[in-house]
Amino acid sequence: APTAVMGRSGWQVKSSKLAFNTHNRIRNIVESLKIKPNPEKPMIPLSIGDPTTFGNLKAADETMKAVLHSLESGKFNGYAHTQGHEASRQAVAQYSAHQRPEGAIETSDVVLCSGCSSALEYCILALADRGQNVLIPRPGFCLYHTLAEGLDIEVRYYDLLPEQQWRADLVQLESLIDENTAALLINNPSNPCGSVFDEKHLRQLIAICERHYLPIIADEIYEHFVFPGSKHLAVSSLTREVPVLSCGGLTKRFLVPGWRMGWIIVHDRKQRLGNAVIGLKNMCGRILGSNTIIQGALPEILAKTPQSYFDGVIEVLYSNATLAYKMLKQVRGLNPVMPNGAMYMMIGVSIERFPAFKDDTHFVQELVNEQSVFCLPGSCFEYPGYVRIVLTVPLAMIEEACARIAEFCDRHYKKDSSHSSSFIEHVLLDEDELNF
Amino acid sequence: APTAVMGRSGWQVKSSKLAFNTHNRIRNIVESLKIKPNPEKPMIPLSIGDPTTFGNLKAADETMKAVLHSLESGKFNGYAHTQGHEASRQAVAQYSAHQRPEGAIETSDVVLCSGCSSALEYCILALADRGQNVLIPRPGFCLYHTLAEGLDIEVRYYDLLPEQQWRADLVQLESLIDENTAALLINNPSNPCGSVFDEKHLRQLIAICERHYLPIIADEIYEHFVFPGSKHLAVSSLTREVPVLSCGGLTKRFLVPGWRMGWIIVHDRKQRLGNAVIGLKNMCGRILGSNTIIQGALPEILAKTPQSYFDGVIEVLYSNATLAYKMLKQVRGLNPVMPNGAMYMMIGVSIERFPAFKDDTHFVQELVNEQSVFCLPGSCFEYPGYVRIVLTVPLAMIEEACARIAEFCDRHYKKDSSHSSSFIEHVLLDEDELNF
Ligand SMILES: Cc1ncc(COP(=O)(O)O)c(C=O)c1O
Ligand SMILES: Cc1ncc(COP(=O)(O)O)c(C=O)c1O
Repeated sequence: APTAVMGRSGWQVKSSKLAFNTHNRIRNIVESLKIKPNPEKPMIPLSIGDPTTFGNLKAADETMKAVLHSLESGKFNGYAHTQGHEASRQAVAQYSAHQRPEGAIETSDVVLCSGCSSALEYCILALADRGQNVLIPRPGFCLYHTLAEGLDIEVRYYDLLPEQQWRADLVQLESLIDENTAALLINNPSNPCGSVFDEKHLRQLIAICERHYLPIIADEIYEHFVFPGSKHLAVSSLTREVPVLSCGGLTKRFLVPGWRMGWIIVHDRKQRLGNAVIGLKNMCGRILGSNTIIQGALPEILAKTPQSYFDGVIEVLYSNATLAYKMLKQVRGLNPVMPNGAMYMMIGVSIERFPAFKDDTHFVQELVNEQSVFCLPGSCFEYPGYVRIVLTVPLAMIEEACARIAEFCDRHYKKDSSHSSSFIEHVLLDEDELNF
Repeated sequence: APTAVMGRSGWQVKSSKLAFNTHNRIRNIVESLKIKPNPEKPMIPLSIGDPTTFGNLKAADETMKAVLHSLESGKFNGYAHTQGHEASRQAVAQYSAHQRPEGAIETSDVVLCSGCSSALEYCILALADRGQNVLIPRPGFCLYHTLAEGLDIEVRYYDLLPEQQWRADLVQLESLIDENTAALLINNPSNPCGSVFDEKHLRQLIAICERHYLPIIADEIYEHFVFPGSKHLAVSSLTREVPVLSCGGLTKRFLVPGWRMGWIIVHDRKQRLGNAVIGLKNMCGRILGSNTIIQGALPEILAKTPQSYFDGVIEVLYSNATLAYKMLKQVRGLNPVMPNGAMYMMIGVSIERFPAFKDDTHFVQELVNEQSVFCLPGSCFEYPGYVRIVLTVPLAMIEEACARIAEFCDRHYKKDSSHSSSFIEHVLLDEDELNF
């Protein structure tokens, strides 16, 4: 007979705290909207972060062929090393050589992961313990919060300043640091800002990390995704003192988000990460890495996808950015911030000029309902007062969307003579004229 | 000037507890061995769990073609729903219809994951909080421990009894349950035992769960992997009372471990999992699922891979099992347990009969060094006194390996007249003669 035990007394199954607190902020906000698009107008979803949705942008033939070769070889069905196949990691090391100008990246510095999301998860979870904190950008990609919160890792937001091309507020950032700060997370180029940090600013960030002995987690998934006139610098290329975990992958640049091929490059020239590198590699034992067919294709993908392909994608994004910026800049009550890279543009909404709407979320909701144009509210990125649009749609679609946004704003704009800040604000926010 | 802050005072970066405690037990033990294979004899690694390593077992043409079609369609490069593409989940639901005889599995009951490992991770992490415990089998697959430990989820081992065809010790199992027990994990068919629970035993396990209100996590990655004379029953097919999270995938049956396609099927007929189902789905937002090319191929893979292919694989495993069992049963000091499924055999080692070796790990080490045959010590599965061999190698290789093992054992076997238990033990452990 079973010994008497004290088990549960009923079906009180419930979610763990971790799972319950793994929130997707975007989904939560989007689901709370009361949306009924205008049936007269075809829907234009400027909210969708997947660049392959609209059919105008797709993976290069070379990229696809590499996978075909890998598949046909029949050699990539088995388990890989938990950190990835040697040859695939070697290919990533070579592809990322610019991240470490003074010497070669070793294969053992590369960890393949299931998408950049998984790379970020491992970095955050390997560096931060429950009760510690990680500094993350505001506005910023909501996944950082999703990954950390359930594990009781605190996220502390440092502000990016729209009037300074979304550079970080260094003073505020530094004031957040305490003895429990485990890492500074930088997202460069940025989602949702489309900003690209220049060398000077990166060096300022590095200096703070050096002062406070903070490793950097660099979300560089938009690496090389920069518009003419800007230059992407890997933060790891500018410091040998501060350890950097650079997270990247095929997702954005190769336009294959579904393939889930991401990676971490460990830059730890002075061996300062200690056993955190072991911890990071331990993490790979949890789910055993990413799809091996793609791993097998990686050397060919990285070597053969031509520059002309990347240039073509940038051209699309840049044309869209230029057009949208030009059109939206003329809309009263809106303050678009011209991006320098990535695939997004943030648009400030002077909400006091739109008394019909109580906030950015409400603004976005009514924009769908009247004009069938869907933007993401800034609240999705912890940044109310803005909306984000994607730049990955066909040019005609962005044009039509901007025209509808203009119509919508004109309709709801309320001139308020008692409130004269708007003009000044508009001038101040135009980075074509003022350079901070 | 920056405000004065209290940051760290030096580079004391260290691994988080989670990452540091994400141990791979097998790797730790294997790495601790002092191995120098005998150069006179070619190495036979009977340790490798990857069935594709030896070239004799490979994915079906139909499986490979399905991926080709998915790739060529160009439709599966974008992000999928975090729980997987609708059509792919629908295909898994149909494929798994036997798990729920009384009604259809809904698409929303299926969650695609990055391998069965990721499925198990989500199930354990969604059901158990820090400080709670999960019951897992001993001997058992070490990943359960790897996944739980770092999160301070306690694993409590229930014993599988070799003399009872590795059925669970029900009394001992039930004695482990307390109010902090979050789930019972069943691995059926089992790695490393190769055992297949019969209906009666599954019902006994279900009864315990019903008594104590425990959901079941069923690791059924070896589903359908049973030898002639045995039958695989999905535990979910036998109960509507106890919620079951069944974890499966393509890995083993379709011989494509590298593809990382796993899934969870949520069986919660009486809605007893409460918000744990939401939690489980939340978890999918962390790394955004599994490779979409494989997702796109899933309907065709599951529909078109022919029964003859699966039968062929079983035939190989069964022949190997039969041969190895026959050969090793005659070796003094060894007690092989004939498996009924999966891809492994456990072999008891009467270590007191081998005074040259202090334990199973030492035995395994010297077996490599003398005979170049590598088995995994039972310690890798929390079960010293046994070694595990894989049954996925070519027949000639298993024959050669068993011959070498026999030679090794004969050489080191010490007859001890003062110790008469061995003969009795040998008889007792032979399930051909005794049926418990
Ligand atoms: C800044 C940023 N980091 C990471 C990711 C996730 O990339 P992946 O799809 O490779 O996981 C995204 C995707 O939108 C992103 O915008
Ligand atoms: C019992 C058991 N469960 C789960 C797994 C992991 O499967 P996957 O490779 O799909 O993550 C294995 C792999 O060996 C296993 O033996």
